[in-house]
Amino acid sequence: MTGCAGFIGSNLTDRLLGAHHQVVGYDNFSTGRAAFLEGASRSEHFTLINGDLLDAQELTEAMAGCQFVFHLAANADVRFGTDHPRKDLEQNTIATMNVLEAMRSNRIRDIAFASTGSIYGEAVTFPTPESAPLPIQTSLYGASKIAAEGFIEAYCEGFGMRAFIFRFVSILGERYTHGHVVDFYRQLRVHPEYLQVLGNGTQRKSYLYVQDCLDAMLLAVQSASGKVNIFNLGTDEYCEVNDSIGWICGHLGVKPELRYSGGDQGWIGDNPFIFLDCAAIRSLGWQPKLSIQQSVIRTMEFLEKNPAIAEAVA
Amino acid sequence: MTGCAGFIGSNLTDRLLGAHHQVVGYDNFSTGRAAFLEGASRSEHFTLINGDLLDAQELTEAMAGCQFVFHLAANADVRFGTDHPRKDLEQNTIATMNVLEAMRSNRIRDIAFASTGSIYGEAVTFPTPESAPLPIQTSLYGASKIAAEGFIEAYCEGFGMRAFIFRFVSILGERYTHGHVVDFYRQLRVHPEYLQVLGNGTQRKSYLYVQDCLDAMLLAVQSASGKVNIFNLGTDEYCEVNDSIGWICGHLGVKPELRYSGGDQGWIGDNPFIFLDCAAIRSLGWQPKLSIQQSVIRTMEFLEKNPAIAEAVA
Repeated sequence: MTGCAGFIGSNLTDRLLGAHHQVVGYDNFSTGRAAFLEGASRSEHFTLINGDLLDAQELTEAMAGCQFVFHLAANADVRFGTDHPRKDLEQNTIATMNVLEAMRSNRIRDIAFASTGSIYGEAVTFPTPESAPLPIQTSLYGASKIAAEGFIEAYCEGFGMRAFIFRFVSILGERYTHGHVVDFYRQLRVHPEYLQVLGNGTQRKSYLYVQDCLDAMLLAVQSASGKVNIFNLGTDEYCEVNDSIGWICGHLGVKPELRYSGGDQGWIGDNPFIFLDCAAIRSLGWQPKLSIQQSVIRTMEFLEKNPAIAEAVA
Repeated sequence: MTGCAGFIGSNLTDRLLGAHHQVVGYDNFSTGRAAFLEGASRSEHFTLINGDLLDAQELTEAMAGCQFVFHLAANADVRFGTDHPRKDLEQNTIATMNVLEAMRSNRIRDIAFASTGSIYGEAVTFPTPESAPLPIQTSLYGASKIAAEGFIEAYCEGFGMRAFIFRFVSILGERYTHGHVVDFYRQLRVHPEYLQVLGNGTQRKSYLYVQDCLDAMLLAVQSASGKVNIFNLGTDEYCEVNDSIGWICGHLGVKPELRYSGGDQGWIGDNPFIFLDCAAIRSLGWQPKLSIQQSVIRTMEFLEKNPAIAEAVA
């Protein structure tokens, strides 16, 4: 598992270890956290390799003997892509190519890949199905992820591999470390009297609870049988940023003045409406257990119990 | 112009010089040919730089003072992608990122990019429109090109650039150097009594004459006004490989035994049916002057007049 120390990766590591699988975790700890692997590290079925995906040789050696690759490592920072345009290319696209080459060297056939609903750019169909019209990319993050998807698919055709590609909405829950919930939580701890909001607050987004996300991924890799299996993963609902603000403020018992930066985008390349059609994964029998509101509250409870996370980044 | 010494690039260079533009050509001559620039080199409006797109610094310096970038350089070898999987990533995707970064450094806003109908993979709609459902990539070439498209689009959104993306069918005509016409021509020169054909001969493909292709590109960059302007470029017809064999053999006056390798694909990742919907470029007033059959004959005439091309590669 690449990105084993990240938000989703560490939760998935725990799930796989709980199901008595052997897990070799690979992470460069650029955003992953050793603390997230505390439980995993106590398992004799877990091996941790502190390595970088751009180090193709170390990666190839790390994969020796593995049977299935979960490729979750990424630069998951959608918002600041234009500050360092090569980062998405390197950490998402080139890194994925290195994963594919390491798999080929080790004769590993199956890959599950964490892609993103951001690849739909500014979608024209809502909810957006996997077969949406070929989108125009609006972020370097989305571009780097659809690029990675394409190389994975070409490897499936060219080298007989099999892929499970998951296009996530934003994920919430335990070990969540970046995004609007932690941003608002941090702000309201420092200045409960006001809240700075990017955009005009009407951006509509969909979210999914991390354990629901893992349920879907594990079900898909066990059930789907195509050469390239692509699934949107989200809830059948969306909320406005303003809804989320209401839940967060209600949970904290604060009534801040809302200071909007304005405009219908939070930042350049921000997608003002994300809502995915998840009929494909639902047809396998999956459904999320938590609503968006419940996921936001669960995330708040995690942040409250883990002040180090909430205070880690400005 | 990147790839100025290539098939399409050298023809475009001649057209631009003929229209009294200044052209700075950039090519590493990995597949480009100095002979194709004989005419251009006599023009005082032409500057040739022998450089590689992976040399970001040289590329950035070469672009100084330019106003518009035609990015045509590519590894255009669809068929042998699985022999060297990193080549498409490097020469098509990373190279394009270097072009975008060099443009940003030089504050150049406009880019025209040579993409490919191969990005549609095995399309489900024929003729295939630009807004086809999100395809699954079947070749490293297609994957590397849709990756490049995505980064170009993200730069348009993130950095205020403007793009003209052209998804070509296979191009034929003067300075054509690789593909089925030259392959068949070479074979029939050596052994006119038989012809080896990849696949079963019923693969259906569309082709476009190079000067028709250039007419379309030049019209689009003058007429289209969007931030990201995407055009399929092809004819409103397709032919079977067997049709093309008939035209070629008729032109040469030979009746070879046809030896098919079999199967509905010429090679792994070969697309058995390519036929693009070109309504968008036609709506600007363009139409091709030559049919596919005329383009094939024109290509044969070029090869007959240029035996060095026909004999260059085994």
